[in-house]
Amino acid sequence: MARTGRRPGNQDTREAILAAARQAFAEHGYDKASIRHIATSAGVDPALVHHYFGAKEQLFLAVMEAPIDPGKAIGEVLAGGLDGVGERLIRMFLTVWDSPAGVPAAALIRSAVSHDWSARMLREFVTSQILRRVIGGLDLDPKEGPLRASLVASQLVGLIMARYIVKIEPIASAPRETLVANVAPTIQRYLAGPLEGLDR
Amino acid sequence: MARTGRRPGNQDTREAILAAARQAFAEHGYDKASIRHIATSAGVDPALVHHYFGAKEQLFLAVMEAPIDPGKAIGEVLAGGLDGVGERLIRMFLTVWDSPAGVPAAALIRSAVSHDWSARMLREFVTSQILRRVIGGLDLDPKEGPLRASLVASQLVGLIMARYIVKIEPIASAPRETLVANVAPTIQRYLAGPLEGLDR
Repeated sequence: MARTGRRPGNQDTREAILAAARQAFAEHGYDKASIRHIATSAGVDPALVHHYFGAKEQLFLAVMEAPIDPGKAIGEVLAGGLDGVGERLIRMFLTVWDSPAGVPAAALIRSAVSHDWSARMLREFVTSQILRRVIGGLDLDPKEGPLRASLVASQLVGLIMARYIVKIEPIASAPRETLVANVAPTIQRYLAGPLEGLDR
Repeated sequence: MARTGRRPGNQDTREAILAAARQAFAEHGYDKASIRHIATSAGVDPALVHHYFGAKEQLFLAVMEAPIDPGKAIGEVLAGGLDGVGERLIRMFLTVWDSPAGVPAAALIRSAVSHDWSARMLREFVTSQILRRVIGGLDLDPKEGPLRASLVASQLVGLIMARYIVKIEPIASAPRETLVANVAPTIQRYLAGPLEGLDR
């Protein structure tokens, strides 16, 4: 088969940028990591980082090997507003995980659990790419939004663990819609129901 | 300091039994693993296994380095019946994990996620030591019990991930009672509320 890919030199540059970015996001978090700093660490011009990866968010998604663009998927879920958002969110989530895209995603969670730096990366990913969008997209009370969104995250991560990683039956082999039907009210309540234990 | 522990020979025997038991539980599952087979693999008499570890259940807890006896803790939670069981279960659970006993427990989850055999062990532990007791202790409909119990497990595991491993805020630093108040209705509904998507 003829080689049609990028020249090795470009591939090396991409890898160097990804390695520098991985370290920067893990050390400084998503918000404080800068393209300029990442470019310096990789020994390239910042323009080259933009050329290969686009903006910081796309670079982060490339580092995380994200199987889908969470912004797009979550945008569709949130577009309908609070009414029925629990069901739309859990269905979208399980549809992605049941697809081939779920394989690298499971690898990401495995890695996050066994390595501190991966856990930091997953935390940044969940916070900057998912929770922040959910809070913003639903116009949640800023005092309540972070707790609501992290409760949602706890149920979603637990479902992933039970279905794909620890494989607890019958969740591991249940039809997707059975899980959607039973978990949707939980997500809905975390996002839109009464919230306890916050100072007001 | 004077040595006051067991003689090394005994320690070696214990370790050999634990290693054989670990492999047997991972390969054959809790139910099918036998003390006789474990003793043979370890090159000792079955009576010695009983002498060191007691019954199969205690041997399994020793292999898992379980920080508490789940049977005792869950028994207390279930003693009050279905009414309020969600709140009692989540409070007991977080109390254990917030204590020093939570440190080895977190190590167990980390290991389960990164190694297939540990995942099998954790699945056996959750199924045989926790879910089965919950289903039995609450007299759940046998058709519904496993799904109810595994939904509970999914929320509990996700809460552990969010609070202690991935450390998603504000769950990571929230007062225990804030989490109890918000998660208890989820556990209660999974155990005692309407269940969707099962053939009847």
